[in-house]
Amino acid sequence: MRELEERIAKEGRVLSDDILKVDSFLNHQVDPDLLHDMGEEFRRLFEKEGITKVLTIEASGIAPAVMTALAFHVPCIYAKKHGSHNIGDDLYTAAVHSYTYGKDYEIAVSRPYLNSNDKVLIIDDFLANGKACEGLLEIIAQAGAVCAGIGICVEKGFQEGGAALRAKGLHVESLAIIESMQDGVLTFRH
Amino acid sequence: MRELEERIAKEGRVLSDDILKVDSFLNHQVDPDLLHDMGEEFRRLFEKEGITKVLTIEASGIAPAVMTALAFHVPCIYAKKHGSHNIGDDLYTAAVHSYTYGKDYEIAVSRPYLNSNDKVLIIDDFLANGKACEGLLEIIAQAGAVCAGIGICVEKGFQEGGAALRAKGLHVESLAIIESMQDGVLTFRH
Repeated sequence: MRELEERIAKEGRVLSDDILKVDSFLNHQVDPDLLHDMGEEFRRLFEKEGITKVLTIEASGIAPAVMTALAFHVPCIYAKKHGSHNIGDDLYTAAVHSYTYGKDYEIAVSRPYLNSNDKVLIIDDFLANGKACEGLLEIIAQAGAVCAGIGICVEKGFQEGGAALRAKGLHVESLAIIESMQDGVLTFRH
Repeated sequence: MRELEERIAKEGRVLSDDILKVDSFLNHQVDPDLLHDMGEEFRRLFEKEGITKVLTIEASGIAPAVMTALAFHVPCIYAKKHGSHNIGDDLYTAAVHSYTYGKDYEIAVSRPYLNSNDKVLIIDDFLANGKACEGLLEIIAQAGAVCAGIGICVEKGFQEGGAALRAKGLHVESLAIIESMQDGVLTFRH
């Protein structure tokens, strides 16, 4: 998606060979009009999948997920992280390993909101090693639902997550794929 | 806002005299079309305030704040909670007391995204004791910016937060105000 790539090129800050900051428009300060356009793009990419729910993880997935749900006119669910879920005991849960914080955390979704009739579109801001997506896939499996697609704002193409998810036969679409950030030079995959 | 009150009356679950769950449409599962309408309503209520930024706290404030920012076509900033902010060292910070979890937590906003030219609209899903809003007001003050309004989805009118903020002369608008939830019976203030 050219609009997103241009924004990353203009405002993204490469802090190391694998850390890219886009917190001026995506995951701390948010440009709502850009995210609205990204939601419309995800709708176009997944419009044949019969999506009934959009699923993400708090906190940085929420803004793109809600905009995508708006484009589809379906509910958005954001999985809660352990410690922040005062959402009762009737839960699907999964463990997710965070490389950023060097530990596992638990994610939870209230059971009434996902069931075996759902065709779920996972949305997240970043895809790197794919651990967050794997946790969400585990929750979708517990619900007996189907993962009908995975929509990513920014994929780090030099990490293994995207290839692993596509190797499972999942329909993965990333609006921008970073090929490399070596020596501070950012290149996209097309 | 009638649409929101009707939704609370239909789907809200009163778990005690002061706990109301609205996680089927507001803060776990989210109805994006309802939140879009709420964003438009906040724009109508604050349209004379010259809003330049929308400010909230992760995670449950993000969805209504982003929809409000979309209605105003201004950036949305969500303050990060301590432990989740890998947003650098150049921060405004404030302490917020959480009654839900019985402890203080730190919120942080990256300094480049708020400055003395900003007229800030605070948006949050709930207003009860007002501690989250006080933390955001502290950050706005550190930036030398102005709080031009506070927009709340659901105010617990029987707690002190709303009255305290209005007593400071702040422009507070709540889309639904709960008068009482005693004995499981939910009544609205009009």
